[in-house]
Amino acid sequence: MREWIDSYEERDWQTTTDGSVRYALIGLGWWTVDVALPAIESSELGEVTTLVSSTTEKAQRLADANGVDHGISYDEFHEGKAESAYDAVYVGTPNAFHLEYVETAASLGKAILCEKPMESTVERARQVVETCDDADVPLMVAYRMHTDPAVRRARDLIESGFIGEPVSVYGNNTQPLLKMIPDEDQWRLDPELSGYGTSVMDLGIYSINTARFLLDRDPVAVQSQMSSHHDAFEDVPDERSGALLVLEDDVKMVTTDSQNAHEDTQLKITGTEGQIDLHPAFHGKCSLHLSRNDTKVTVEHETFDDEREMREEFDYFSDRILSDTPVYADGRHGLEDMRIISAIHEAARTNEVVEL
Amino acid sequence: MREWIDSYEERDWQTTTDGSVRYALIGLGWWTVDVALPAIESSELGEVTTLVSSTTEKAQRLADANGVDHGISYDEFHEGKAESAYDAVYVGTPNAFHLEYVETAASLGKAILCEKPMESTVERARQVVETCDDADVPLMVAYRMHTDPAVRRARDLIESGFIGEPVSVYGNNTQPLLKMIPDEDQWRLDPELSGYGTSVMDLGIYSINTARFLLDRDPVAVQSQMSSHHDAFEDVPDERSGALLVLEDDVKMVTTDSQNAHEDTQLKITGTEGQIDLHPAFHGKCSLHLSRNDTKVTVEHETFDDEREMREEFDYFSDRILSDTPVYADGRHGLEDMRIISAIHEAARTNEVVEL
Repeated sequence: MREWIDSYEERDWQTTTDGSVRYALIGLGWWTVDVALPAIESSELGEVTTLVSSTTEKAQRLADANGVDHGISYDEFHEGKAESAYDAVYVGTPNAFHLEYVETAASLGKAILCEKPMESTVERARQVVETCDDADVPLMVAYRMHTDPAVRRARDLIESGFIGEPVSVYGNNTQPLLKMIPDEDQWRLDPELSGYGTSVMDLGIYSINTARFLLDRDPVAVQSQMSSHHDAFEDVPDERSGALLVLEDDVKMVTTDSQNAHEDTQLKITGTEGQIDLHPAFHGKCSLHLSRNDTKVTVEHETFDDEREMREEFDYFSDRILSDTPVYADGRHGLEDMRIISAIHEAARTNEVVEL
Repeated sequence: MREWIDSYEERDWQTTTDGSVRYALIGLGWWTVDVALPAIESSELGEVTTLVSSTTEKAQRLADANGVDHGISYDEFHEGKAESAYDAVYVGTPNAFHLEYVETAASLGKAILCEKPMESTVERARQVVETCDDADVPLMVAYRMHTDPAVRRARDLIESGFIGEPVSVYGNNTQPLLKMIPDEDQWRLDPELSGYGTSVMDLGIYSINTARFLLDRDPVAVQSQMSSHHDAFEDVPDERSGALLVLEDDVKMVTTDSQNAHEDTQLKITGTEGQIDLHPAFHGKCSLHLSRNDTKVTVEHETFDDEREMREEFDYFSDRILSDTPVYADGRHGLEDMRIISAIHEAARTNEVVEL
């Protein structure tokens, strides 16, 4: 056990400790300012040199407050202002704006770390991928769960046979969005900005993507049910969502997601010989509950929170840029999630099994 | 909190402490002999006077070993032997034999406590109900979770608004059947005896029925996926099952079940304001995890196990017989589960939404 605890290499991916990647952060919502920015500032291989927001004033005010060199508007970004000051961009805008910033960043030859989901629709996500391919710039989608040690340990255990053959997966991601952000007109409830809906795009993607990462298996068929009840959710179909997915090798996966429910996140994988239960799973704290034979073990990594995950995320991406090596969660990996989410919405509309 | 703990009336249903109901136990598998029999022996209102098994010899041997007056064969039971020695029967045979013992017991005017699922098919379950209706004898289906204090507390809390509006339900029931009973020809894997299949009939019924009991809402639509892989499961379709159900008031419910997986039972109900998580939920120990606002509370009832649940089950049924009052889990309640299970199997065969 001591060996297992000590030997774990949090950064088994790291190839360099030299150099620094200079970032422009695009879209200054609370996540970018309160989590991503300090994460890069405390990272080993990255620094923030540029902030990009709706107005020059807002960008400069936040740049001054955080000791960042440049604060520019979206328009100025598209015009290439301060482009010599950064090597890479982090796109943290509402989903439907990702493509336009990716297009400009790619045309400037910058590496791109794009928040998930990649865009608002499969078609626009595909354009994100093609844009980066055509410009030959690195593109990564920011799945921070891939850097969490609980998730990485779980992945290693599953790969080594800890749970035997995987049988079933359960993912839940619920939160009370309107209590967290008391605004009924926020972008996550506007399909023009969020895409297909809100609960699966913003929350369900965690269960889907983390299951894909842990099991190295993708969904092949999807069924789902959705409904909206609260007035604030009238423009999105999925205030409440439930889905049934079949993954490769006949693994049965079920998920529930809601932006209007008590906060809970869980991802549980049951196999023929054991079980791995991440509960809570996604928002900040991740507890790893292992079960095999008659033994249960709970593993906590006490210093990991959202910011620490993002620091690992940025250092991983910086490492890949500095060493000119491929990223794991590339555009095609992110595009697959978009196809799955689109299929879940289609399945809810048609009441049919949608094959992938 | 002290008041909440102390004031809980485990037996808020009890109406009498006088009298005794004499039981005949039909089908002497391990559950009947090791759990049901001692449960009645330690109960307040019941006693076992008769054991019924495949041969007179086996029944008499077990009767002698357990201090029971009569041991008779199935044939002798049908002939009415020792019928003056018992007031009620407990039917614990394989599913597809329930009907024939119910028919004889009803014709003898005995009260009937029938194990779940009620029979092997909806049609035969309906005959169970009609047989008891026609003979005007009490019929109850043995849903022992209804007597568990964790489940009863959860039900009271949900009814009082603890979780707000219910949003989603997750139920899992998995166990390694072939490790527990190392026999590839056992009746639970034989659809002639078990009915539609094995995992949903034998395990999924816990999630379905307990959710119905807790929420007082029934499923209105069902989708599902099933598959079998292991040789021992070749005659049943559901070695692995996943289902997506919509309950009344648009509650999304997802379930996974398998007779060939690591043991785990969980039933989690998430609402707009809180969550109730039974984990483990079904086999013996039931832990109640409550969550509301930022507070989490875990409640354990340390003396409750399968036998204690069965003792409560038998005393509840005895109480109802002695006071001549209706039971909660009557034939129609059990028949509804059969319709739901049948719909889950139909949904898996057709890939369609099956409405109830």
